[in-house]
Amino acid sequence: MKPRRVLTFAKLIIVGFTLPVLAADPLPSWNDTTPKKAIIAFVERVTKEGSPDFVPVPERIATFDNDGTLWAEQPMYFQLLFALDRVKALAPQHPEWKTREPFASLLKGDVKGALAGGEKAMLEIVMVTHAGMTTAEFEQVVKDWLATAKHPKFIRSYTECVYQPMLELLAYLRANGFKTFIVSGGGIEFMRPWTERVYGIPPEQVVGSSIKTKFEMRAGKPVLVRQAEIDFIDDKTGKPVGINSHIGRRPIAAFGNSDGDREMLEWTQAGDGARLLMLVHHDDAEREFAYDRKSHIGQLDKAWDEAVAKGWTVVSMKDDWKRVFAFER
Amino acid sequence: MKPRRVLTFAKLIIVGFTLPVLAADPLPSWNDTTPKKAIIAFVERVTKEGSPDFVPVPERIATFDNDGTLWAEQPMYFQLLFALDRVKALAPQHPEWKTREPFASLLKGDVKGALAGGEKAMLEIVMVTHAGMTTAEFEQVVKDWLATAKHPKFIRSYTECVYQPMLELLAYLRANGFKTFIVSGGGIEFMRPWTERVYGIPPEQVVGSSIKTKFEMRAGKPVLVRQAEIDFIDDKTGKPVGINSHIGRRPIAAFGNSDGDREMLEWTQAGDGARLLMLVHHDDAEREFAYDRKSHIGQLDKAWDEAVAKGWTVVSMKDDWKRVFAFER
Repeated sequence: MKPRRVLTFAKLIIVGFTLPVLAADPLPSWNDTTPKKAIIAFVERVTKEGSPDFVPVPERIATFDNDGTLWAEQPMYFQLLFALDRVKALAPQHPEWKTREPFASLLKGDVKGALAGGEKAMLEIVMVTHAGMTTAEFEQVVKDWLATAKHPKFIRSYTECVYQPMLELLAYLRANGFKTFIVSGGGIEFMRPWTERVYGIPPEQVVGSSIKTKFEMRAGKPVLVRQAEIDFIDDKTGKPVGINSHIGRRPIAAFGNSDGDREMLEWTQAGDGARLLMLVHHDDAEREFAYDRKSHIGQLDKAWDEAVAKGWTVVSMKDDWKRVFAFER
Repeated sequence: MKPRRVLTFAKLIIVGFTLPVLAADPLPSWNDTTPKKAIIAFVERVTKEGSPDFVPVPERIATFDNDGTLWAEQPMYFQLLFALDRVKALAPQHPEWKTREPFASLLKGDVKGALAGGEKAMLEIVMVTHAGMTTAEFEQVVKDWLATAKHPKFIRSYTECVYQPMLELLAYLRANGFKTFIVSGGGIEFMRPWTERVYGIPPEQVVGSSIKTKFEMRAGKPVLVRQAEIDFIDDKTGKPVGINSHIGRRPIAAFGNSDGDREMLEWTQAGDGARLLMLVHHDDAEREFAYDRKSHIGQLDKAWDEAVAKGWTVVSMKDDWKRVFAFER
């Protein structure tokens, strides 16, 4: 560097160090309503040194549900749509499926009929589409599907169907020293192949449901083979269990959208100190979907009552979000 | 800041940015032998931008066994010594233990006799000492024990019986962008209360064995109650399973000391690119303990043969470590 340049560079650094930064709005897709104010007030309280609510950086843990909180979950959980596509792709190798439920109905396009078999049918679909392969093979199948599959309403890839305000919230929390985790009922290995790219959340910060894996040597190489056996369901009372198992520390902020997130918010609230508890309410049929107390997917009923009783923040997608998706005009 | 001060400050910053730092030896407790050279050569290869072996920061994952790798494990796993102390502390509430094995032998000080009951006896001891309380209560019990218990040979607290060269290695890796994880057969909730203070490893980077926990409401407050049921054994083939479940990414460096670490090293080595695989060999009866192929605790036999066959680095505590513990003169 030449002396003159060095001086200019030094000035730049000094300005950067000594002038308060006039930061741009960190949450531009949020309207200036209660939720945005609650988020900013909370972050300022816990990050201000000397404040009674100050939280040291290692304890700034924030957990996010995924389906319906970070990305959409209608008309069906995306992982279920993935499983249905896989059944179709695998059908030629399974001629017996033509006459065996739940596959027979599925292959005729009758999803409702297939799911009439309840949890047993659902589990059978999951097992034939998610098990019997190595973890590396499954990761590739997920990536390949995401590269081509489109959401039926938005005609966009599923990883584009993520909520822009929540992406901003994740980035804002991380810029303030938070470690952001996903705590989802969805499959942990279904999420990990893309959460880092889409949310900036690395695989080790993803908590989810899982099936068992088994270590095997194949041609002298170790592999993990996905077994047709449930290991853990990370939903409802399972969420605090999953948080304890994977994080080992109580979050100070938790974000969800349905009754499946209720215990996560209760667990988060039960610690000492400032807390931020938030539920996304899907009330925007035009830009996204409108559903709550009576929905089969993402039901928001008991958690809503509890939010009102306990002072959790309920976010109206319609009123509190300027924009839902990045792809909107 | 006054102008003159500003300039001096600016100079300082410039010097810091432009002069290469003459770093102090990052591994002062290691002799200048093969293992130290292998560690430094590996770190330089994977951190040098443009090098064919360069690894981006998020993928710099290093996993460490705990018992015998980061802290001592003789004359018995420290967690077992903890359990024995707990049996004595709880005995007054359990008069029936006086005539019931394995407790009767234990209370007479006959550890060998108690453990003659094999895995079943061991499991029974673990269950009465580790289950039937909330996670918060267990954390407190562990902390209280560590605050007073002393190692029988070193007459030091157990958290002082950690290997100084390994503390330096952890810090050196982290200074080079690595994320350091524990992957131990020990109990995950037995380690988490102290790993951040002692190793700089936060709870969310600790993988270990676990018992199941159950979410309950007690007096309107949510708690997690530790159940008398094994959830996961993070040893041998369980280590790659635990790594996959908690980290979701293959390590590029792995450190162990016994046959229980063999599959973790195999799994780590099986990925593409530069790898560092290392086993600590306990051959220093004077400063620590000497044991390997025939030991009941921390047996190093098959993994040693495999280290020789596959080029893993074997660290001789006697020859390669200048110092074992920080408390040595």
